[in-house]
Amino acid sequence: MKMRIVVIGANAAGAKAASKAKRINPKADVTLIDRGSFISYGACGIPYYVSDTVSDIKELMSTPVGVVRDAGFFKKVKGVNVKTNTEVTRIDREAKVVHLLETNTTEKTFLEYDRLILATGSSPFIPKISNVNLQNILTVKYIEDAELLKNCAISGDTACIVGGGLIGLETAEALQQRGMKVTVIEMQEQLLPGVLDQEMAFLVEKQLRLQGVSVMTGCRVTGFTGMKTVEKVIIGERELPADLVVLAPGVTPNSGLARAAGIDIGITGAIAVDARLCTNDPYIYACGDCCEVTHLITGKKVHIPLGSTANKQGRVAGINAAGGEATFSGVIGTSILRVFNINAGRTGLTETEARANGYDIETVLSPAHDKAHFFPGAKPIVLKLIAERATGILLGLQAVGEGVVDKRLDAAATAITFHATAEQLSQIDLAYAPPYSAAMDNIIVAADIMKNKLAGHGRGISPHEVMRKLDEEDDFILLDVRSSAEHAEIGIEGAKLIPLGMLRERLNELPQDKEIVTFCKISLRGYEAQKILDAAGFKNTKYMDGGILAWPYALRTK
Amino acid sequence: MKMRIVVIGANAAGAKAASKAKRINPKADVTLIDRGSFISYGACGIPYYVSDTVSDIKELMSTPVGVVRDAGFFKKVKGVNVKTNTEVTRIDREAKVVHLLETNTTEKTFLEYDRLILATGSSPFIPKISNVNLQNILTVKYIEDAELLKNCAISGDTACIVGGGLIGLETAEALQQRGMKVTVIEMQEQLLPGVLDQEMAFLVEKQLRLQGVSVMTGCRVTGFTGMKTVEKVIIGERELPADLVVLAPGVTPNSGLARAAGIDIGITGAIAVDARLCTNDPYIYACGDCCEVTHLITGKKVHIPLGSTANKQGRVAGINAAGGEATFSGVIGTSILRVFNINAGRTGLTETEARANGYDIETVLSPAHDKAHFFPGAKPIVLKLIAERATGILLGLQAVGEGVVDKRLDAAATAITFHATAEQLSQIDLAYAPPYSAAMDNIIVAADIMKNKLAGHGRGISPHEVMRKLDEEDDFILLDVRSSAEHAEIGIEGAKLIPLGMLRERLNELPQDKEIVTFCKISLRGYEAQKILDAAGFKNTKYMDGGILAWPYALRTK
Repeated sequence: MKMRIVVIGANAAGAKAASKAKRINPKADVTLIDRGSFISYGACGIPYYVSDTVSDIKELMSTPVGVVRDAGFFKKVKGVNVKTNTEVTRIDREAKVVHLLETNTTEKTFLEYDRLILATGSSPFIPKISNVNLQNILTVKYIEDAELLKNCAISGDTACIVGGGLIGLETAEALQQRGMKVTVIEMQEQLLPGVLDQEMAFLVEKQLRLQGVSVMTGCRVTGFTGMKTVEKVIIGERELPADLVVLAPGVTPNSGLARAAGIDIGITGAIAVDARLCTNDPYIYACGDCCEVTHLITGKKVHIPLGSTANKQGRVAGINAAGGEATFSGVIGTSILRVFNINAGRTGLTETEARANGYDIETVLSPAHDKAHFFPGAKPIVLKLIAERATGILLGLQAVGEGVVDKRLDAAATAITFHATAEQLSQIDLAYAPPYSAAMDNIIVAADIMKNKLAGHGRGISPHEVMRKLDEEDDFILLDVRSSAEHAEIGIEGAKLIPLGMLRERLNELPQDKEIVTFCKISLRGYEAQKILDAAGFKNTKYMDGGILAWPYALRTK
Repeated sequence: MKMRIVVIGANAAGAKAASKAKRINPKADVTLIDRGSFISYGACGIPYYVSDTVSDIKELMSTPVGVVRDAGFFKKVKGVNVKTNTEVTRIDREAKVVHLLETNTTEKTFLEYDRLILATGSSPFIPKISNVNLQNILTVKYIEDAELLKNCAISGDTACIVGGGLIGLETAEALQQRGMKVTVIEMQEQLLPGVLDQEMAFLVEKQLRLQGVSVMTGCRVTGFTGMKTVEKVIIGERELPADLVVLAPGVTPNSGLARAAGIDIGITGAIAVDARLCTNDPYIYACGDCCEVTHLITGKKVHIPLGSTANKQGRVAGINAAGGEATFSGVIGTSILRVFNINAGRTGLTETEARANGYDIETVLSPAHDKAHFFPGAKPIVLKLIAERATGILLGLQAVGEGVVDKRLDAAATAITFHATAEQLSQIDLAYAPPYSAAMDNIIVAADIMKNKLAGHGRGISPHEVMRKLDEEDDFILLDVRSSAEHAEIGIEGAKLIPLGMLRERLNELPQDKEIVTFCKISLRGYEAQKILDAAGFKNTKYMDGGILAWPYALRTK
């Protein structure tokens, strides 16, 4: 008898699982069920449709050659049966039956399976606050949301985004591009919490403000007011007018159906699976946003729903359900965002996460051009590299800037996956020509700085710590070693200027025993200054990580 | 007494080594010697200066903040003494003395050293053919060449580039952008020999021709004619008029000085060094273009001069000469080129190299958009992935296309360095959002195809082999499974059309036992067609690797 494979959820993971299962086992009878009308679409593309970057919503549901991935496509091309507008109401594991409700006809049916794949996805988290159900309070998840958002996004109106994460910021840009006045409200003290460390998130926030977006961090939305439609956002004692609210505080896994069927749910609230993506029921697999994954650095279970992971997992679940053998090892938390002219992302652990996981670490902030500095179009990026102090093993990379960050993240993600040390990263034979990078790529430079620090040659101090010292009026010298011209152009209030080229002759202007913190534009000259002071017998010198380009606070301008 | 460190050659490797040595050992007396007047410049930038992409030659000699790296800069900022216009005529290893000739004054002097670093670089290879010394026969290496080339590049005139390697093609573009009529003459049967396999090089050649550059492969230049200035290029029986000739057939290491001093020269003709970059003389190090390196895949010694390697090596030689401890492990042959609108590069071994080194391999051709296909600006790239058949260990990646190839090369270079398998590459948590890649990045897709092939699910046949079968009128069916509209637009002469969506119903049109080669635009549908035919009992089906997008030969158009 033909093997019957049923897949619940027909987006990234489910569609992939169904197609792969059919290819692996062409004799199998594969059915793909979804409660929506649209299937297999690129939900990640929704903000770009809202901003008109993508003009036709069909493009999000099409193959690269322009064929819409609908039920007919899956039947004819993939050999997979599709049931849309069909809710799975219950899984009867003993009878190996899923109970269905056709939402248009309210007809109840059922379907037998030999193998079941759960790809039920995730849903936007809706906070339980007053009047959250008013009109014009929307989320960004389904294809229907895209049209709704576009209709509500009226030029000149005000929009509030609740949540400064990846989806929140992408949507903020989209709505601003439609002419709205946008405010992003984030509960944490920084944007992109859980993605970037605060000092890196500040660089993103700076740019958002430059683009005219209002940013409120450390603010908890407590409710909304309005008659039918939202009128105001309540933030404790404060109120903010809003014609449109987007809720983007995060997502929760759709694990209710599985939970009701007695399938194990993990510590994250998502479905627990083994490396084969099998649940505690040997006939049931799970993949995509509904299940949790192993973090390959910490070994802990995490719920990080992403289209990239969903596709990888769909393939594995499809192969295993069809009788093959495949495993999914896990993730290292890579994510990336483009917002306005800024690229921002990370892979591995942030400093905060690394410390929370008990690692003794060293960090590096390294700004530089993304291409040979003389090549037209070269733009700055700031890297933050994190390594374990005792071993030099890389734990994470963050990257923010107008220049190319994704390739540095991808190379670092690969290196981190293979437990590379800073020494090993510094030696990788990366692709070099002036249109692509400096002769020493940014990640090679960052790795070299890390090696200097781990060997005790370079002693860094974070911008955050320098800011604290300035605020608390610590007795130290903040030494700008850039040129006079650079110093006149822009600087840090309270810094003393001795250009690096004059430092050797002007050492007598500096007290030998006072703490001296050197810096320049990127802190290469800052580091060289520290070495010169060290050699001259100065006792307490450091350089400020990342220099002016990584300084997230206000700068003195002309 | 102060340690005296002398560095011969003040470009990438030498300048880096000197600066690093001084930082590591600030009490050392470091002297940097160069026979030229200009030092520490980005020779890789010369073609971009010729094309006016970089407007001021000083930019190639400046730091990112615009300070010219001249003798004064090295003295003041780096604490390094510089002697320009100074030829080292002899190394007296016994006395630890280098003999110098100041080329402007013809004064002879000498310099004692405790440690010597050779960074003598490489020179353009000048073929021994008749009249090679005529005027307007130039090379691209020194800063002086840049001005000369620019002066000789007269709009409307004809230029011949001898050698279709990286420098040859970059220069071809630069001269064409100056309005010259450019012909590239390459001895091998393809452009970029030693960089790309023929089928990938053909994709570059196709674009060069589209841009109006004439390409002659398999042609050996045997001499030149002209009175004072070159007038014609002689290619055996043929002659080609030329107002300007650029010799770019490759470079040779400047190892003569070392050889004369009895320092070991390696099998490649470059200076032999150990992992610490020490020569057979424990007081003499070598780094950069003048020395050979270990290829990390084959374990063999190779001479692959690149600015990226020179910088890494300069750091290592500098540290070791100054009394520290550092090693340079080797390279994997990564290189990249931008020529017109095409990015092309590779890392690891090509198919040709892998086979020559005795590997039993599998290959994959995988074309796809470089970003989410719906994202504006998404452009195609073709990847060629090479893995060892028995282990799945990756040996090489080549990438060619209008889209972003460098990040795929960098991630693959990292993976290959850590001996990753196709399985491991397919699971790497790369940075995904629509502006950066499809949900499954191109290298993940290529790795998945490799896994399908290694597991025997997919059976590929190269475009080259299909072309041979067509040429020799083999009895087989070339089956186009794209849509009728795609088929009408463009195609391969002699192919039969059955769109994939109809294949299941039209199987009776195909003979069960005849060889069938399926293809589509990228050969995903081609692969699906193979699986459908397999399942239907067809005995001899394959799909053509890479489909239309990787087909390097002529296409039928409307």
